[in-house]
Amino acid sequence: MVAQTPPMGWNSWDCYGAAVTEETVRANAEYMASFLTPYGWEYIVVDIQWSRANAADHSYEPFADLTMDAFGRLTPAVNRFPSARDGAGFRPLADYVHSLGLKFGIHIMRGLPREAAHRRLPVAGSDCFCHLAADPHSVCAWNPDMYGLRCDTPDAKAYYDSIFRLYASWGVDFVKCDDIAREYPHCRREIELISEACRNCGREMVLSLSPGPAPLEQAEHLKANAHMWRITDDFWDDWRLLKGMFERAEKWCVHAGPGHWPDADMLPVGALRQCENPAERTRFTRAEQRTMMTLWCMMRSPLMIGAEMTKNDDFTLSLLTNASVLAILKESWCAHPLRTLPEESVWIAPRQDGQGVYAALFNLSERKRTVTLPAGEAGLPVFRGQELWSGKAIRKTELLRASLPAHDAAVFLLK
Amino acid sequence: MVAQTPPMGWNSWDCYGAAVTEETVRANAEYMASFLTPYGWEYIVVDIQWSRANAADHSYEPFADLTMDAFGRLTPAVNRFPSARDGAGFRPLADYVHSLGLKFGIHIMRGLPREAAHRRLPVAGSDCFCHLAADPHSVCAWNPDMYGLRCDTPDAKAYYDSIFRLYASWGVDFVKCDDIAREYPHCRREIELISEACRNCGREMVLSLSPGPAPLEQAEHLKANAHMWRITDDFWDDWRLLKGMFERAEKWCVHAGPGHWPDADMLPVGALRQCENPAERTRFTRAEQRTMMTLWCMMRSPLMIGAEMTKNDDFTLSLLTNASVLAILKESWCAHPLRTLPEESVWIAPRQDGQGVYAALFNLSERKRTVTLPAGEAGLPVFRGQELWSGKAIRKTELLRASLPAHDAAVFLLK
Amino acid sequence: MVAQTPPMGWNSWDCYGAAVTEETVRANAEYMASFLTPYGWEYIVVDIQWSRANAADHSYEPFADLTMDAFGRLTPAVNRFPSARDGAGFRPLADYVHSLGLKFGIHIMRGLPREAAHRRLPVAGSDCFCHLAADPHSVCAWNPDMYGLRCDTPDAKAYYDSIFRLYASWGVDFVKCDDIAREYPHCRREIELISEACRNCGREMVLSLSPGPAPLEQAEHLKANAHMWRITDDFWDDWRLLKGMFERAEKWCVHAGPGHWPDADMLPVGALRQCENPAERTRFTRAEQRTMMTLWCMMRSPLMIGAEMTKNDDFTLSLLTNASVLAILKESWCAHPLRTLPEESVWIAPRQDGQGVYAALFNLSERKRTVTLPAGEAGLPVFRGQELWSGKAIRKTELLRASLPAHDAAVFLLK
Amino acid sequence: MVAQTPPMGWNSWDCYGAAVTEETVRANAEYMASFLTPYGWEYIVVDIQWSRANAADHSYEPFADLTMDAFGRLTPAVNRFPSARDGAGFRPLADYVHSLGLKFGIHIMRGLPREAAHRRLPVAGSDCFCHLAADPHSVCAWNPDMYGLRCDTPDAKAYYDSIFRLYASWGVDFVKCDDIAREYPHCRREIELISEACRNCGREMVLSLSPGPAPLEQAEHLKANAHMWRITDDFWDDWRLLKGMFERAEKWCVHAGPGHWPDADMLPVGALRQCENPAERTRFTRAEQRTMMTLWCMMRSPLMIGAEMTKNDDFTLSLLTNASVLAILKESWCAHPLRTLPEESVWIAPRQDGQGVYAALFNLSERKRTVTLPAGEAGLPVFRGQELWSGKAIRKTELLRASLPAHDAAVFLLK
Repeated sequence: MVAQTPPMGWNSWDCYGAAVTEETVRANAEYMASFLTPYGWEYIVVDIQWSRANAADHSYEPFADLTMDAFGRLTPAVNRFPSARDGAGFRPLADYVHSLGLKFGIHIMRGLPREAAHRRLPVAGSDCFCHLAADPHSVCAWNPDMYGLRCDTPDAKAYYDSIFRLYASWGVDFVKCDDIAREYPHCRREIELISEACRNCGREMVLSLSPGPAPLEQAEHLKANAHMWRITDDFWDDWRLLKGMFERAEKWCVHAGPGHWPDADMLPVGALRQCENPAERTRFTRAEQRTMMTLWCMMRSPLMIGAEMTKNDDFTLSLLTNASVLAILKESWCAHPLRTLPEESVWIAPRQDGQGVYAALFNLSERKRTVTLPAGEAGLPVFRGQELWSGKAIRKTELLRASLPAHDAAVFLLK
Repeated sequence: MVAQTPPMGWNSWDCYGAAVTEETVRANAEYMASFLTPYGWEYIVVDIQWSRANAADHSYEPFADLTMDAFGRLTPAVNRFPSARDGAGFRPLADYVHSLGLKFGIHIMRGLPREAAHRRLPVAGSDCFCHLAADPHSVCAWNPDMYGLRCDTPDAKAYYDSIFRLYASWGVDFVKCDDIAREYPHCRREIELISEACRNCGREMVLSLSPGPAPLEQAEHLKANAHMWRITDDFWDDWRLLKGMFERAEKWCVHAGPGHWPDADMLPVGALRQCENPAERTRFTRAEQRTMMTLWCMMRSPLMIGAEMTKNDDFTLSLLTNASVLAILKESWCAHPLRTLPEESVWIAPRQDGQGVYAALFNLSERKRTVTLPAGEAGLPVFRGQELWSGKAIRKTELLRASLPAHDAAVFLLK
Repeated sequence: MVAQTPPMGWNSWDCYGAAVTEETVRANAEYMASFLTPYGWEYIVVDIQWSRANAADHSYEPFADLTMDAFGRLTPAVNRFPSARDGAGFRPLADYVHSLGLKFGIHIMRGLPREAAHRRLPVAGSDCFCHLAADPHSVCAWNPDMYGLRCDTPDAKAYYDSIFRLYASWGVDFVKCDDIAREYPHCRREIELISEACRNCGREMVLSLSPGPAPLEQAEHLKANAHMWRITDDFWDDWRLLKGMFERAEKWCVHAGPGHWPDADMLPVGALRQCENPAERTRFTRAEQRTMMTLWCMMRSPLMIGAEMTKNDDFTLSLLTNASVLAILKESWCAHPLRTLPEESVWIAPRQDGQGVYAALFNLSERKRTVTLPAGEAGLPVFRGQELWSGKAIRKTELLRASLPAHDAAVFLLK
Repeated sequence: MVAQTPPMGWNSWDCYGAAVTEETVRANAEYMASFLTPYGWEYIVVDIQWSRANAADHSYEPFADLTMDAFGRLTPAVNRFPSARDGAGFRPLADYVHSLGLKFGIHIMRGLPREAAHRRLPVAGSDCFCHLAADPHSVCAWNPDMYGLRCDTPDAKAYYDSIFRLYASWGVDFVKCDDIAREYPHCRREIELISEACRNCGREMVLSLSPGPAPLEQAEHLKANAHMWRITDDFWDDWRLLKGMFERAEKWCVHAGPGHWPDADMLPVGALRQCENPAERTRFTRAEQRTMMTLWCMMRSPLMIGAEMTKNDDFTLSLLTNASVLAILKESWCAHPLRTLPEESVWIAPRQDGQGVYAALFNLSERKRTVTLPAGEAGLPVFRGQELWSGKAIRKTELLRASLPAHDAAVFLLK
């Protein structure tokens, strides 16, 4: 079964926006295969607008021409994805990614292309039609391409089934479906149709829902219908967004488990926003990046790298290859925040094998601060163990202490 | 430090309402000492209206005469608590409870008696006055006795200090403060004053805040200022209230920890509402009582028995003396609900010592139902262990199953 | 200046829905010219969907083909409006209506046809384009034809100017713009663009905004930008809707005045819903129809007949030709409700010329009821005058009385 | 019947707060009799706290001693109202006011004195008791003296009847009941009890409800149960409050009529806040005072002078004695705002006798401004008449114009 632990991979949005190309995807896949595979990273995901020939940055164009087949299914723009020529779709690129020992993912939008409805195209493998499937009143608030579907029609079910069959034939392992995770209650049934199409397409795929914030009160519906779902709007390299994630993590952490993972969004590390400026790198400090990685691991969020990885510096690579920290993602469970105050936060998470507990101490303030954790507060008589970013051993103590620069974190394995 | 694990005890409200007497308290204390002490039960708490001579049932009387000292501090009504005569207060009763190896608690209301303000009484040990401490606009919505305090005055601080000093001199170990836990934001400062008075009174006391629902967004303030606080309005022997507790437990479980416990309220088991009808017993089925005990233990709620214990039948006693189930309260941590659906719920909680995990399976439906838990969903390869209500061993399996009557629960220790 | 008093006319919606034809319009215009002109009736308004060839009833069709010119301006479907052939538009029909001494009006939707945007049509008389004017995220909630406009673009202004120039060239006297009156705040600017295009098109036109309820707090914006605007959602022949109008009338009556009229919607009298069933007539009782006409006149709502007028019976015709009642619309002002109770309502309205006051008494209850009005309550020493539906004289009295059947009304001119 | 036109008088609050004395009341009554009677002014109203001996300014004192009789009915503090000695109550003062040809009014609070409940006093002329009438949970948010009543008890009805009988015996003509007009829905029944007690006490009295804002949706209940009710919170000499009154006046004007008047509160003119500073005078400019008087007259609000009248200067006196302006209050009806924009407002009101229409033009901006009114907008062919503040004649015109300083107003009688 897929997503038994939180999925780990790379996504093209933070570095290339709507303008990702086959060349870039291949280069990042090769980087991952060379440097990251041993640490658990495996998904290579092509984000939004791969069917639009003239995409150039992070923006969308109203009434843009989108590449599609005769059944209203979007296909890669061949000027950007040359291997897709002659109707091959993403099959050749997926094959290549698989050949590197990795898995391949794509982005889709809820619904079908508006043009497919106005042109009244047929739905593949059925006697249904796109204009009968499309709901002319259901439009995305931020992207102009699609109409959502009239989920009570056989045409809608046929359309979703038709696209997932196509993706399965391409070898897709991961689908990030957009304009849907926060669209309750009106998209509740649409989520179920997509989930069913995904489960029945003949290939195991991870289904990821965006954008957030998904509503907390729909947690059980999300758990039943998706492998991961966004708990925030787009996350970027801005401390206020990172600080705000502590509150969301606290509310969602009880819903993380095998096959269903609340998703705190991509990791904006390393080289970002390459279309706008090839020299641009994350605005997060190193301390903030440690805080982010620590929180994501403790709350067991999926990890999706946002960087153009071929430009990783040593620090960025070290952040992504700390096996002790990444083990939290795989080996812990039942994480709890012990406290979340304006100035600091403390989280604990037992190991599933009973061999100790992880404890993370965060300095959320604007200055150096000593954050402490009494053994009693974590329910243990004494602590001993190791800090995982530094590797430093912790001798037996009743009071764990971390003297932390502003926005920094420490995380321990204690026994 | 007090309340390192969730407090366990007995409270007079469910069985005697406002009309509890010394005789009854003594009898229940003796029962507890004889039958329950080995299982961790220790607090004997006298609930509301102990200063009103003519209390007869669960109701309140406007403009009732309350017994008080010359400083506006309520004292026990001597017709109901004879040992309080000659100004002894609860000291003799507390001494007796202590002599049994137990701890003694009382109920108070936020504020001071209205009469003390209208009579302009002085505050003990200060040059302050009750009418300067009282806020004539701050009145409880459901009880007519008190005025809340003007927390920005020295008189208010002096008054709260004066009553906690008195309780310390009586030997009180536990104070349940009422009309306050859900009274945010206007009572925020009043909670702090009471918390400070409690910490500085010279005796260790548990501070419990009522009634609920306390607001979730105030979790950190509650954790900093109280040992336990109610997360619901009054809980009684009604299945709808019990079913509704699953949602509250899910939201609050991350805030349970040493010294701070979300409180699901008293356990309405055994003989209840004795003033109204001495023959009355809980309306919960045995299955529902198992569900309640299991959920309270998994979420680590304080346990306060509501029964007239001297009338316990075998089943009620067995419910309160299952050492394996009660061990969950003491030995688990980091409980998580795996799912809460209209028909069933599953919770897990690791043991702090790493020696296994507790898993509780609840049938919330109106008919017999088999609830299952795949080992994979709990993050383990296989299960083996024991069901704790029946004592039945569980042989190695990848799928835990419990065939449960309506409203019943099973709980396992698995490794 | 137009709309100095509330516009009076006929509208095709209640009787023909989306399926009105030229033949029907001509027949109703001829009827009006023959029977109603002396009473002030003058506008003949063609309602929604006149550009859709296959419209058959009150419903809309997603992705329907709409007739439009090369500039994305909708034109009449020639199968339904034969005189519009060869690009004549509504010019011939308007000419005919004018030849009868009447005025001609049409319905439009906010925005431009979706197809005009997807086909990237140019905007007439400008270097602008439809796809740059259209906002792909602005879609009507109940009709699938149009995109709203991006009102900050020159293309949007150019488009609205282009359609009003076309309507002026056709001879249109009245434009009912739909999907806009309740769409505050997001359509505030769009209302202004349409209002400017209307004022600057070179022909005097009444601008009417639909559907309601328009927000009361936007009264001044509506008064500045439209001649009439709907204060309710669609009104039909249902007593509950009629009774509910009393509350709306009370709130809006202070905003009625020359050039700006709160609109209580069409009068569903006589033969209605002819596409669905040619035999269908209003479900209102005669009493209810008197109540409706009386309230609309007292509050000075525009009057738009919903009937297929050629099927008018004597009662319907009498309702529309009571000159004394219709004089209220022209001659009164400053109407006030004296009271609106669950069982009855009383309104007064002085005549502008100082020659008396109108008083309307309504029985809103389900049974016969005597409604009274003391002269003192209306600020007069005594009453004398006439009841206007019956023509009966009222002798000098200090207490006006009307014994009314359920849902009926009486209205008086008093001095 | 009382209050056939909006009541006019004087109230002690704006000049003396809680500290008004008999001497002051007599002096103001004498002033009114000497200078204002011919203009329609007639009520002399003693505002809040006349039963508290030590009142000194506009503030209240928690747990103050209040003078009351053996039945819990408040009586005047004899140190402040010497003629009330020997149990005479307000009878001697009322007699004196009557001897001047004026009417006498007093302020009361909803409910009964808290002390009367705590002392369990009997209710006069009944076998009821104050502690059974009082609701210990119903306390005023801003005054500490009273408990509201449990309106479903015979004791509550008996208490309200008992106080109105006492006031009738004193000769009271006007009762301003406080802590009630905005206290819907919980005080709905209490308003009815007070209204019934007032109607049945054997003497005609005006019943005025405070403070506002009374809820607009309760207009019919207020009209049925009171002669006037406040539509705002306390009004003072602050331009923002005056400007804000235009919006409230617009909403409430349809509810003004004989016997029921929306009340815009006292007129803070002349010498105010005399306890705090005997030299203090209104902060309103003369322009603002004209605007206030004009709006209050056009909307037909009751007029209650807030000044220490014996210190009136010529301007203040002229403001209160312009017979032409005050005639608006008596002779107009059915006032409507024609427009209310951020910078200006225009109101019209026909005369009841048909002899012309009043038109008020307001400059709400911060600079000189010409406000205009086309005759057509007011529904007339041409205007001629007079400006009423200046007395200047208006020659025949189609466009009324007023060049107004900031915050000023002009008001015309036009024919």
